[in-house]
Amino acid sequence: MKITRRGLMTGTTGLAAGAVVGAAAGVATERSGDSTGVASYPFRGAHQQGILTPVQDRLHFAAFDVTTTDRAALVRLLQDWTEAAERMVAGGSAGPVGPVEGDDRLPPDDTGEAIGLPASRLTLTFGFGPGLFSDADGEDRFGLADRRPKALRPLPHFASDAIDEARSGGDLCVQACADDPQVAVHAIRNLARIGMGTVAVRWSQLGFGRTSSTSRSQATPRNLFGFKDGTASVKSEERDAIEEFVWVAPGDDPRAEWLAGGSYLAARRINMRIETWDRQSLRTQEELVGRTKSSGAPLSGGDEFDEMDLEMPGRDGPVVPVDSHVAVVHPDNNGGVRMLRRGYNFVDGSDVLGGMDSGLFFVAFVRDPDTHFIPLQSAMAKQDALMEYLKFTGSALFAVPPGVRPGEFVGQALFA
Amino acid sequence: MKITRRGLMTGTTGLAAGAVVGAAAGVATERSGDSTGVASYPFRGAHQQGILTPVQDRLHFAAFDVTTTDRAALVRLLQDWTEAAERMVAGGSAGPVGPVEGDDRLPPDDTGEAIGLPASRLTLTFGFGPGLFSDADGEDRFGLADRRPKALRPLPHFASDAIDEARSGGDLCVQACADDPQVAVHAIRNLARIGMGTVAVRWSQLGFGRTSSTSRSQATPRNLFGFKDGTASVKSEERDAIEEFVWVAPGDDPRAEWLAGGSYLAARRINMRIETWDRQSLRTQEELVGRTKSSGAPLSGGDEFDEMDLEMPGRDGPVVPVDSHVAVVHPDNNGGVRMLRRGYNFVDGSDVLGGMDSGLFFVAFVRDPDTHFIPLQSAMAKQDALMEYLKFTGSALFAVPPGVRPGEFVGQALFA
Repeated sequence: MKITRRGLMTGTTGLAAGAVVGAAAGVATERSGDSTGVASYPFRGAHQQGILTPVQDRLHFAAFDVTTTDRAALVRLLQDWTEAAERMVAGGSAGPVGPVEGDDRLPPDDTGEAIGLPASRLTLTFGFGPGLFSDADGEDRFGLADRRPKALRPLPHFASDAIDEARSGGDLCVQACADDPQVAVHAIRNLARIGMGTVAVRWSQLGFGRTSSTSRSQATPRNLFGFKDGTASVKSEERDAIEEFVWVAPGDDPRAEWLAGGSYLAARRINMRIETWDRQSLRTQEELVGRTKSSGAPLSGGDEFDEMDLEMPGRDGPVVPVDSHVAVVHPDNNGGVRMLRRGYNFVDGSDVLGGMDSGLFFVAFVRDPDTHFIPLQSAMAKQDALMEYLKFTGSALFAVPPGVRPGEFVGQALFA
Repeated sequence: MKITRRGLMTGTTGLAAGAVVGAAAGVATERSGDSTGVASYPFRGAHQQGILTPVQDRLHFAAFDVTTTDRAALVRLLQDWTEAAERMVAGGSAGPVGPVEGDDRLPPDDTGEAIGLPASRLTLTFGFGPGLFSDADGEDRFGLADRRPKALRPLPHFASDAIDEARSGGDLCVQACADDPQVAVHAIRNLARIGMGTVAVRWSQLGFGRTSSTSRSQATPRNLFGFKDGTASVKSEERDAIEEFVWVAPGDDPRAEWLAGGSYLAARRINMRIETWDRQSLRTQEELVGRTKSSGAPLSGGDEFDEMDLEMPGRDGPVVPVDSHVAVVHPDNNGGVRMLRRGYNFVDGSDVLGGMDSGLFFVAFVRDPDTHFIPLQSAMAKQDALMEYLKFTGSALFAVPPGVRPGEFVGQALFA
C-alpha cells in the first residue's frame, strides 16, 4: 500500500501516521544514502517533528509577518495551521475537502500540485519570532510580552554580516522538510493560502540538498565547498546531548514555561564565495576547514567521527590550524557547547557579479541561543579563516514551542 | 553495482554509459512515478541528450556570456566542456584527476560536492545564443555571422511580457537535468569553473519539479496551478512528430547545415500569480485551462489523452472555452504545430509584494521558432484567458547543435 496525497487515489485520513511502507520508503531514502524505512511521521508528540527527524533531502523554509493585531485571529490561524499540517504530513490534503472533490463553484481547499505524491517524510516545524511578543514599535499587540522567552530577540550584528533585511526576521516561521520538494513547496504554499489576511510571507528559502545528519544512520552529506558538513552535529541517538543542547528544560526560563520541551531555531543564510574557493589548492581548503576533503577526518588523523587532536604539532603550529573552522567552533574552545544542525545547500540563480548566488542555509536548534549559538557565531566571525569565503546575508531567530498534544494546537500553552 | 561519482569509491571511467542498474535505477525513478530503469545515458549520439530523454526530476539551467573575442579560446572551451560533460554524465568527476586525488598543492579539478552520488540520469544539453554570431554592437567577433541559423535572434516582445534582462538571453546555455539536484548543480558549477576567463554565468535557474513528460512511460506531472501540464507535449515514442516538430532537418536552413539534427531551445521564465489563482473557484480554474483538474481530461470529456472537441456546445459557447489555454494553443488553431516541452516548477523565494516568486520555467525544443513557437506565444499573449495569472519575466532562444559524434566536440560542425 502506498500513502498518497488525498485527491485522486484514496482518502488517507484513516491511515496511521508513521506507517512503515517497505518498497516506497526504501526508495525514498536510498537516494540520499539512508534507510529510515519510514514514509511519514506522526505530527503530534512531546516535541515537534523536523528537529530530531532524520534530515530529509529538501527544504522550503518560510517566515511570515502577522498582519493583524487581533489575538483571536492569530489563535485561529494556529488552530487552522495545526489541522492542515497534521493532515498534510500524513499524506493528505491541506483542507478537509481536497483539491478536486468539493463544490466547483468554490475555490478548492487544497491547491492540487501534490495530488498523487506520497507523504515523502514531510515534517512541518513551527516557530515564533520576537515580533509576536512586541512589534517594531515595541507594542505588545497580542498581550504576550510578559511570556517572551528571555533569549528571543533579533540576533545581534556579527562582524562581517551583510544582512539583507528582506531575508531576515519574521513573526512566525514554518520549516517544511520532505524528500520531494514539490511536497515541501505544496505545504508552505497552502499554509500561506490558509493564512491570507492574517499573515503574509516575509521571505522564504528553498534548499535542494541537506548538509547535515541528525541520525547516525545517515551518511554525512557535502556542502558546496565539497566538504562533509555536520559531522559533529548532535545526533538523535545521543539522548543526553539532546537534553543538554537541544530542548528547553522546565525551569530554564520561568517567564516562558510554555517553551519547555521546545527549542530555539537559529537561521542564517550563508553565501559562499565558491568561485574563489574553487581556485584554492586542496591543501589550503583542508587547512581552512581542518578536515580532509575525502573522508572528513580531522587533519590530526583517524576517521570522520574520531576525536580531533587540537594540540598535535605540525610543521607550522598545530596540524589542525588554530584558525581552521573546526578548531574555532570545537566544543573544547566553546565551553563544551554543541548544536543540532539541519542546514541545506541552496542556489538562487546568479549574483550581480555573475557568481552563483549560492551557499548554505544554516539552521540549528539550540536550547539557549545566548549561550549555545551567539558566542559560537561571534567566535567564527572573529577568528575563523573560512570567513573570507562566507557572506552572511540572512538572519533570524525563532522560539520553537514543544510538540502538539492530542486536541491541542501549535503553541497552545503560550496562549493559555 | 552502483555507479558513483569518481572520488572516494571507484573510478568510473571504464563504466559503460547507459548501464541499467537494477536497484539504484528503480529507486531513482520510482519517486517520480516512472520506471526508466536507467542510471545514466550515453553522452554521444546523433542528437544531444536531454531532449527526448525521459524528463528527470530536477533542473539547473545556466546561460553564459562569452567574455573573449578569441575564437580559439571559444573552441577550446567547447572541447573542455565536451570532455567534462561526457565524464560527468557517466557519473565521473569534472576533471580527469578528481576532487581529492591530485597534488594537494593545486586546486582540485572537481569541486567535490557530488562525491559518492550516483550518475542520477544527468544529461547536459548545450545551446548557442544569438550573441555568438554577432555581439551587442553587431560585431562578428568569432567569424560565425554567415553561419547564423535563420531563426536565431532574440525573441520578440510579446504583449504582457515583463522581461528582466538579467534573466534573459546569453551567448551559450547549458541545461543540466538529473534526478538529484546536487548532481545537476555540481555539473553547472564545474562547467562554469572550467570556463572561467572565457565565459561568465549570465543567469541561472533551478527547477525543482518537472512539468512535462517526454515519454509515454512517464506520468504527467503537475504545475503550480495544480493542473497536469504537458499532456499534449510531443512524446519520444511519436517518431514522425519528433522529425516534424523537433529536429532541424538537412536543407531546412542552407546557411546553417551544421544545425541539422539539432533543434532550437526556447526558454521562458513564467511567474504565476498563485495567490490570485488560489482564490478562483475550481470551475473557473478548469475553464481557464480547458481541462479538468483531477484527471487532466479535456472539458469536452474522456480521459487525459483523449482528443478534445473544440466545437462541443456548452451552456454559454463551447464547453472548452475559446479563450481557454488548451483551445488557444491547440494544433487545430495553430496550423497543426506541436512542441516538445521540458519545463520545470520553480520557487525563488518571495517577490516584493510578499507573494511567492514562483511559477514555471518553460523550456521547449522546436524545429523552427518562427513557425513553431513565436506564433503560439503571440496567440497566447493576445487571447489566452490564463494570461491574467501569468507574468513572463525571462526569455531566451538558443540553437542546439546536433549530437556529438565520437572524437568530436559539441557544435564542432559550426567551426569546421
